[in-house]
Amino acid sequence: MSQTPDKAVRTYIEQHRAAFLDDLAEWLRIPSVSAQPDHAPDVRRSADWLAAKLQETGFSVAEVWETAGAPAVYAEWPSDDPGAPTVLVYGHHDVQPAAREDGWDTEPFEPVVRDGRLHARGAADDKGQVFFHTLGVRAHLAATGRTSPAVHLKLLIEGEEESGSPHFRQLVEEHADRLAADAVIVSDTGMWSEDTPTVCTGMRGLAECEIRLYGPDQDIHSGSFGGAVPNPATAAARLVAALHDEQGRVAVPGFYDGVVELTDRERELFAELPFDEQQWLRTARSHALHGEAGYTTLERIWARPTAEVNGIGGGYQGPGSKTIIPSTAMVKLSFRLVAGQDPDHIEKAVRAWAADQVPAGIRHEIVFGSATRPCLTPLDHPALQSLARSMSRAFASPVRFTREGGSGPAADLQEVLGAPVLFLGISVPSDGWHAPNEKVELDLLLKGVETSAYLWGDLAAHWRDVP
Amino acid sequence: MSQTPDKAVRTYIEQHRAAFLDDLAEWLRIPSVSAQPDHAPDVRRSADWLAAKLQETGFSVAEVWETAGAPAVYAEWPSDDPGAPTVLVYGHHDVQPAAREDGWDTEPFEPVVRDGRLHARGAADDKGQVFFHTLGVRAHLAATGRTSPAVHLKLLIEGEEESGSPHFRQLVEEHADRLAADAVIVSDTGMWSEDTPTVCTGMRGLAECEIRLYGPDQDIHSGSFGGAVPNPATAAARLVAALHDEQGRVAVPGFYDGVVELTDRERELFAELPFDEQQWLRTARSHALHGEAGYTTLERIWARPTAEVNGIGGGYQGPGSKTIIPSTAMVKLSFRLVAGQDPDHIEKAVRAWAADQVPAGIRHEIVFGSATRPCLTPLDHPALQSLARSMSRAFASPVRFTREGGSGPAADLQEVLGAPVLFLGISVPSDGWHAPNEKVELDLLLKGVETSAYLWGDLAAHWRDVP
Ligand SMILES: [Zn+2]
Ligand SMILES: [Zn+2]
Repeated sequence: MSQTPDKAVRTYIEQHRAAFLDDLAEWLRIPSVSAQPDHAPDVRRSADWLAAKLQETGFSVAEVWETAGAPAVYAEWPSDDPGAPTVLVYGHHDVQPAAREDGWDTEPFEPVVRDGRLHARGAADDKGQVFFHTLGVRAHLAATGRTSPAVHLKLLIEGEEESGSPHFRQLVEEHADRLAADAVIVSDTGMWSEDTPTVCTGMRGLAECEIRLYGPDQDIHSGSFGGAVPNPATAAARLVAALHDEQGRVAVPGFYDGVVELTDRERELFAELPFDEQQWLRTARSHALHGEAGYTTLERIWARPTAEVNGIGGGYQGPGSKTIIPSTAMVKLSFRLVAGQDPDHIEKAVRAWAADQVPAGIRHEIVFGSATRPCLTPLDHPALQSLARSMSRAFASPVRFTREGGSGPAADLQEVLGAPVLFLGISVPSDGWHAPNEKVELDLLLKGVETSAYLWGDLAAHWRDVP
Repeated sequence: MSQTPDKAVRTYIEQHRAAFLDDLAEWLRIPSVSAQPDHAPDVRRSADWLAAKLQETGFSVAEVWETAGAPAVYAEWPSDDPGAPTVLVYGHHDVQPAAREDGWDTEPFEPVVRDGRLHARGAADDKGQVFFHTLGVRAHLAATGRTSPAVHLKLLIEGEEESGSPHFRQLVEEHADRLAADAVIVSDTGMWSEDTPTVCTGMRGLAECEIRLYGPDQDIHSGSFGGAVPNPATAAARLVAALHDEQGRVAVPGFYDGVVELTDRERELFAELPFDEQQWLRTARSHALHGEAGYTTLERIWARPTAEVNGIGGGYQGPGSKTIIPSTAMVKLSFRLVAGQDPDHIEKAVRAWAADQVPAGIRHEIVFGSATRPCLTPLDHPALQSLARSMSRAFASPVRFTREGGSGPAADLQEVLGAPVLFLGISVPSDGWHAPNEKVELDLLLKGVETSAYLWGDLAAHWRDVP
């Protein structure tokens, strides 16, 4: 070939980007919201669509895998090199709930390109980042002249990530033989910024629960009964208020058991990143920093466990007033976990703490969703070095290392498959994951394609390097 | 006449009860919910209906009075005795919000009689209790052979009581000349129980507000940002948790300023009432007593100021989970006030307290509805004695004295008209004011008619008695 591989990759991407974006838009139009039961048919439609598209791309196997919940998609494209390493790409095809009235400028499931950004629910989390691998592998073949990938390529794209992946562990265990891999590439995270490409080395875990509080058997008149019986909305509020101490630490006894504390070296690496607190606050659309005393913002979001209220409700929320003591109230809590924390232990701790807090006369129940474990990959792992090199080539820039505050079922893959987990994500903090007007930067999306195009060759060449 | 007056009254009521109940049901079918703007036409329809019905009853004046909000109804039936006292009956024709899905067994605006109880929103609060006066005055005339009532009878039935009577004070001030009265009869309270007829001597006041808290400019991802920025739902919860101290006292500085404390004699009278805490708890549909330390339940609900959360909301409240930091949260609070407390002072105190509590990075605003003052009438007032005698005749039982924990604009009438306020109510605690399945006991409703039938003659005979 007369082209350098990089040029060939870029040319191929340029030639196919329009069709690639059309296909992605078609997928984004499917409102595959896994948390809302009425969208179950859409989640299935999304899986079917993806399996068909992967087959069209060239994967020799493309199957919809059933779970007790929403279906996943599995695909394989074996390498002609029998000694090639096996790589499993992980992502998800389900999305967060979204409704125009939540503050979207356009319909969340009607993709729109504005100013080089593709806006739609799932654009960044996670359909866009799953989909760049389809063009990536074809660019890899076109640029290298290969007829099969340099690695045995597998894809597992689940359908319940935004619901806490309740059946993912079981799915992976069931299909562990077919999923076996030398490395797992998770494409469901982000990077530092448009200008600073980074590779993420770990994710926080997640435990979620809803605490329901039951007071009077029905709403009662606050004039007749107020001040003399317990109010479940007050109980809900007091629970939430008791969740943190005045130092911003989570006040659930036992919550910090086993937490792997940051080393001085890690704190230094974090501190060296070009972090602009004011810029970060703007991205967070927030108006002050706040959190656990004694830690920086990056430490708080990447390496410290946290507790947040995701929702609270009880009593009358309509216009005007209604002088009642509500019958019920609820809070939805989520806990981000770091290496060393065990979700089962957290659940026990939260149950004991809540039982201790709720006053007499208020009945409570706690429903935990399935949890996600935290995970972390060593910086000197050869596959991680391959990923950093490929990304550096795509971005023509050195790559730094970060962590991810969010959570994914990566730890299950690491645990069941015994493979290291690497994170290849091109999303940036302003992409608005889980928020209105979610978007992906088209330039970065195509850098993702490019990184994917370089990665398989680099991995095949270096995966046996000794750290 | 050969009949005793009591017999004549009872016979008249018996003969007219069916038509009376049909008319009341017709009125209850009008969903006159003043707190919900889309029901404004229904509130007006309710006023028109009542004015027409009062004219049909025999009132020589029956007018719909406009306010800046919902209309009130005013009616007059002068006495032929020029020296007769003037009595103003107060009630309201608007009702609390109600929807079948809140837990009603039947449609809230489709009245149903079951087991001697009339179920409908407004059956007890307050349409039933306003309406018994229409049959009461006709029974009074029929039994005494009079062609006009023994008192100059006036009615003022407002349309915004369930919205905090925002324009009532202005209405009363505007029409003070026409409303002038020697005594005010408020028919918007209850009595002790079916077996223990009581006269209420005072009501608590009410101040209400909604506190809105604004955090991030939109919902943001709790994985990416959680633990590092303030969460408005947490701020809302901490506000509510800070509302009471560990003794159950309201912790807003200045809240108790000016509170008229209970005397030992008042505490004795309360303690003498046949109060069954377990029975009261069942009526309250509640599962424990709870409140300000050092006070009994009756003291807490009748004579102590309180703070309650009527509603709290923020973030994701749908099925499943959504890992966000919500952009906004809100709490609806109401404060019951007792004699000596000033709503304006309470508003200032709550604003200062909230400003002190809300953390940096959370913006807040507080919207107060219009307040209702507390009021109290001396036990030895001759009009109060007339009322107790009339009720005693209707119930064939001695009458005891209570207070009312709820609130009404009675204090405005007392203040503007300079007239003592008496409370004639036949509702019982199980009637479910502001709750699903609100009802009125038909037997008691007719005792209300009967009390009204006796009251005008007794008042005319005794209103000049010196206490
Ligand atoms: Zn995701
Ligand atoms: Zn009322």
